[in-house]
Amino acid sequence: MDNPRYEAGLRKLDEIDGEAGHRVIASLADIAPDLGRYIIEFGFGDIYRRPGLDLQSRELATVAALTALGHCQPQLRVHLNGALNVGCAPQAIVEVILQMSLYAGFPAALNGMFLAREVFAERGVSVT
Amino acid sequence: MDNPRYEAGLRKLDEIDGEAGHRVIASLADIAPDLGRYIIEFGFGDIYRRPGLDLQSRELATVAALTALGHCQPQLRVHLNGALNVGCAPQAIVEVILQMSLYAGFPAALNGMFLAREVFAERGVSVT
Amino acid sequence: MDNPRYEAGLRKLDEIDGEAGHRVIASLADIAPDLGRYIIEFGFGDIYRRPGLDLQSRELATVAALTALGHCQPQLRVHLNGALNVGCAPQAIVEVILQMSLYAGFPAALNGMFLAREVFAERGVSVT
Amino acid sequence: MDNPRYEAGLRKLDEIDGEAGHRVIASLADIAPDLGRYIIEFGFGDIYRRPGLDLQSRELATVAALTALGHCQPQLRVHLNGALNVGCAPQAIVEVILQMSLYAGFPAALNGMFLAREVFAERGVSVT
Amino acid sequence: MDNPRYEAGLRKLDEIDGEAGHRVIASLADIAPDLGRYIIEFGFGDIYRRPGLDLQSRELATVAALTALGHCQPQLRVHLNGALNVGCAPQAIVEVILQMSLYAGFPAALNGMFLAREVFAERGVSVT
Amino acid sequence: MDNPRYEAGLRKLDEIDGEAGHRVIASLADIAPDLGRYIIEFGFGDIYRRPGLDLQSRELATVAALTALGHCQPQLRVHLNGALNVGCAPQAIVEVILQMSLYAGFPAALNGMFLAREVFAERGVSVT
Repeated sequence: MDNPRYEAGLRKLDEIDGEAGHRVIASLADIAPDLGRYIIEFGFGDIYRRPGLDLQSRELATVAALTALGHCQPQLRVHLNGALNVGCAPQAIVEVILQMSLYAGFPAALNGMFLAREVFAERGVSVT
Repeated sequence: MDNPRYEAGLRKLDEIDGEAGHRVIASLADIAPDLGRYIIEFGFGDIYRRPGLDLQSRELATVAALTALGHCQPQLRVHLNGALNVGCAPQAIVEVILQMSLYAGFPAALNGMFLAREVFAERGVSVT
Repeated sequence: MDNPRYEAGLRKLDEIDGEAGHRVIASLADIAPDLGRYIIEFGFGDIYRRPGLDLQSRELATVAALTALGHCQPQLRVHLNGALNVGCAPQAIVEVILQMSLYAGFPAALNGMFLAREVFAERGVSVT
Repeated sequence: MDNPRYEAGLRKLDEIDGEAGHRVIASLADIAPDLGRYIIEFGFGDIYRRPGLDLQSRELATVAALTALGHCQPQLRVHLNGALNVGCAPQAIVEVILQMSLYAGFPAALNGMFLAREVFAERGVSVT
Repeated sequence: MDNPRYEAGLRKLDEIDGEAGHRVIASLADIAPDLGRYIIEFGFGDIYRRPGLDLQSRELATVAALTALGHCQPQLRVHLNGALNVGCAPQAIVEVILQMSLYAGFPAALNGMFLAREVFAERGVSVT
Repeated sequence: MDNPRYEAGLRKLDEIDGEAGHRVIASLADIAPDLGRYIIEFGFGDIYRRPGLDLQSRELATVAALTALGHCQPQLRVHLNGALNVGCAPQAIVEVILQMSLYAGFPAALNGMFLAREVFAERGVSVT
C-alpha cells in the first residue's frame, strides 16, 4: 500500500488530525480497511493537499458543513481538533458554528457549540 | 422600523449581497415582511457584523454549509455572489464546494458546482 | 380495491387535498399505483382520520415538517392548500413557516414562504 | 444586557421551557454566551412572542419539525417538555410524532416517540 | 388486532428482525402502540411482503438509505441484523455502506461502518 | 491524465451511465475538471469496480440512497438510467423507491417515483 497518494495523504492526515485520525483509520482495520485507505488517499491525499485554499479555511469549511448537517458528531469532534491543530483561532471556530444558526437552525448550532466546548475544555483552550 | 440593528444590518446586506439581497427582502413584503426584517436584523445586523471572523471566511463557511445541505439552491446562489462580492477568490469558492464531496457526497458537490458555474458565467468570472 | 381503509382514506383525501390530491394519486397509475393506494390507505385512512388531534393542527404540523426538511416542495405545496382547505388561518400558516427559521434556518423558511406566497396568490388569499 | 427584547424573551423562555431552558443558556456561558442571547432575543423574544399562532400550536409545530429532522434529540427533549408546559395534551404530542412517519419515515417517528416516552415517564404523564 | 395484514406482517417481522423487532414494537406499548401496529401492518405486511424484489435486496436498500440519512442509528442496527438474518453476505453489507461515501460523504459511511463492526462482532461475523 | 484508475473508471462509467455520465463530466471542464476526475477515479475506478457486490445491487443501493436523501434529483435521474443500463428489472427499481416511503417518508418516495416515471417513459420502459 506504499503508493504516493497514500503516503502523501498520511502525512496530511498527521498534520491535520494527528493521533485521532490514525485511531479512526485503525478502527476500520477489521471491517473495511479500504474505507480508511480511501479517506487517506482521496480525502487527505487528493483534496486536503490541493492548492487554492489554505488548511485553516479548509477546516473552517468542514466545521461549517458538519455543524450544519448535524448527524456527524464524531467527525465534527475530529475536525474541531483538526481546526485547532492547523492554527485556526478558537474564536473563529466559535463564529463559524454560531453562524450556522442562520442556515441550519439553532439546534444544529447548539449541538456543534457544545461539542466545541468539550474539545476546547479537553485542550485547555479558552475563547474569552 | 428605523432601529439601529435594522439600519446596520441593511448596510451589511448591501455590502455582501447588493441588489440580490434587497430583491429577496422585497419579495417577502406581501406575505411575511417580518421574515425579511429578521434576516436583516439578526442575520446581517447581529451575525455578519460580528468581529472574530472576516467576511470572506464567513461567506466561504456559508457556501460550505449550503452546498452540503443541498436543499437551499436559491440561497446558495445568493451567497456565491456574496462570496465574490466580498472578495473571495473564485478558486477558493471552487475548492470549498469540491471539498464538500468528502462530507456530503458527490451529488451535493456537483449541484453546488453547477450553480457556481452559472454564477461565474453571469459575472464573467474565470477560474482557469 | 373497495376495502374500508381505502374508501375512508379517499374521503379524507377529498376533504383535505381535493382535486390536487387526486392528481397526485392518478399520476402514479402507470408506474406504481400501489404507492398511491398506500398514501390513501395508510396516510389518509389510518393517520389523518385518527382522533386526538384536529385536522388543522395536523396540517400545520405537516407544513412545519415539510418546510424544515426542505426537499419536498411539491408536497409542501399540496399541504399549504390542504391547510387552507381545512380552515387554517393564512396567518397561522405564515407563522409556522416563519418559526421554522429557528429550527431549520432561514433558507428553509424562505423557500417555504415563497411557496406559500404562490399558493396564497393562486387562491386570492391575503395575510395583511 | 437589559434590553427589552432580552427581558421579554427571557420571560417567554421561562413560560415555555422553565429551568431546562435556563440550563441550556447557562451551559453556553464559557464558550458562546451570545448564542444563548440570540436564542432568547430572536427565538423567544421575537418569534415565540408573536401573535397569530398560540403557544400550543407553536410547540406542536416545533415537535413536528425536530422529529422530522431527526438530528436534534436534545432540543426535541426540551420542546417535548415545553409542549407539556404550555398545556399541549400528551395525546396531541403523540399524534404529531406519529404523523411524522408519513413525511420523514418510521425511524424518525420512532426516535421521536422513544424520547417522548422518556419525557412523559419523567413527568408521570400517561397517554392511555 | 387479528387482521390478516397484521398477522402476515408479524410473520415477516419475525423472519427479518427476529426478537429485536419485537422489542421495538413492545417498547411502544405504553406510549403509541398504534405506531408499532403500523410498522407491522404497513412496513412488514404491505411493503416487505411485496413481490418484485427479494428480501436480501430489500435489506441492502434499507442499509443504504439509513446509512446515507445518518440520523437513524438504532434502526440501522436493527436492519444490519436483518440483512444478516435474511442471508446477505457480510461483505455485501460492507460494500453498500462503503459505497455511501460517494452519495452521503465519508462521515455517514464511517458511522454506518462502525455500527456494522459492532453488529458483526456481536454475532461473530467476520468479513476477512 | 492517463493513469490506470482514471482509465478503468472511465470504462466503468461508460458501462453504467453511458453518454449521460460523460455529459456530467464534460460540464465540469471549465469550472472544476478535477471534480469530474475524482468522480471517475474514486467513484467509478475505486468503488464501482470493487468485488463483493454486483453492479445491479450497487445501482439499487444508489437509487435507494438518492431517493431517501431527496435533494439529489439530477443524480438520481442518472442512476435510474444506470440501473436500467446494468440490467436491473424496472419493477425492482420501483420496489426500491416505494420501500423508501418507510425510511424517508412519502414525499421522498413520490419525488423518486415521478423521476422514475419520466426516465422509464423516455426509454419506453413499462412496469406493468
